[in-house]
Amino acid sequence: MNAPEHHGFQLHPQLVADSHPVCDLPLSTVRLIDDVRWPWLILVPRRPFASEVVDLAHGDQLALLVEISKVSRVLQRQYRTDKLNIAALGNLVPQLHVHIICRRKDDAAWPRPVWGVGTPEPYRPEHLHIRIRQLASSLAG
Amino acid sequence: MNAPEHHGFQLHPQLVADSHPVCDLPLSTVRLIDDVRWPWLILVPRRPFASEVVDLAHGDQLALLVEISKVSRVLQRQYRTDKLNIAALGNLVPQLHVHIICRRKDDAAWPRPVWGVGTPEPYRPEHLHIRIRQLASSLAG
Repeated sequence: MNAPEHHGFQLHPQLVADSHPVCDLPLSTVRLIDDVRWPWLILVPRRPFASEVVDLAHGDQLALLVEISKVSRVLQRQYRTDKLNIAALGNLVPQLHVHIICRRKDDAAWPRPVWGVGTPEPYRPEHLHIRIRQLASSLAG
Repeated sequence: MNAPEHHGFQLHPQLVADSHPVCDLPLSTVRLIDDVRWPWLILVPRRPFASEVVDLAHGDQLALLVEISKVSRVLQRQYRTDKLNIAALGNLVPQLHVHIICRRKDDAAWPRPVWGVGTPEPYRPEHLHIRIRQLASSLAG
């Protein structure tokens, strides 16, 4: 049985197409963007109809902040990171989702934002599997 | 006399060059980016050395969230907004600052992110003055 907050939540098909499931945090589903050029996670609060951060109830906003911080620290620990990029844009996919991206000064887009730069490079299956397992394990801690 | 939290805080020269002061909220200085193509504010927490959201103490993170929500609601009320873009990037200016940008489906960059698109169009002085006064007044409420 779904918890009440899940009721009616369905991941946007574009997010399904662009990313792979990592784990569920109390508010958000965590997914890995399928682009090996950057360690790049998205947090998708399991709240139907939320498009803006301010569409969330205050308690959910606090939960989202806690989850952004948690994911940020895990990424910083796990990957060489010169800068985190954190963003809620949603121009193409209106379902609220927060990008958390590890940026390096030698990455393919630096210092520009990553969106729309070049062509995504999907993970090889074995690499994808390892990365997701590592991230899920760190986020469970 | 400065409050302790201001001690040592100095706005990054690039932010000074790109934006105009609107008002101070409890944690952050609010500034208007000098580009008439978008209603575009930045929040700069008055904390020296903060570069990432997770560099802020937990209480400051909560204050930042409250201020992001407040600014978001003011922008939504004041301007026709199809989508807010909220982002902490910092690839060019490492001082922590959060962009909050009103996006419209007919704007100059839609649906792309705004950074690096075209050339900034500075406000005319009288327009700048009115916009800042309106924003400062709404944010004081």
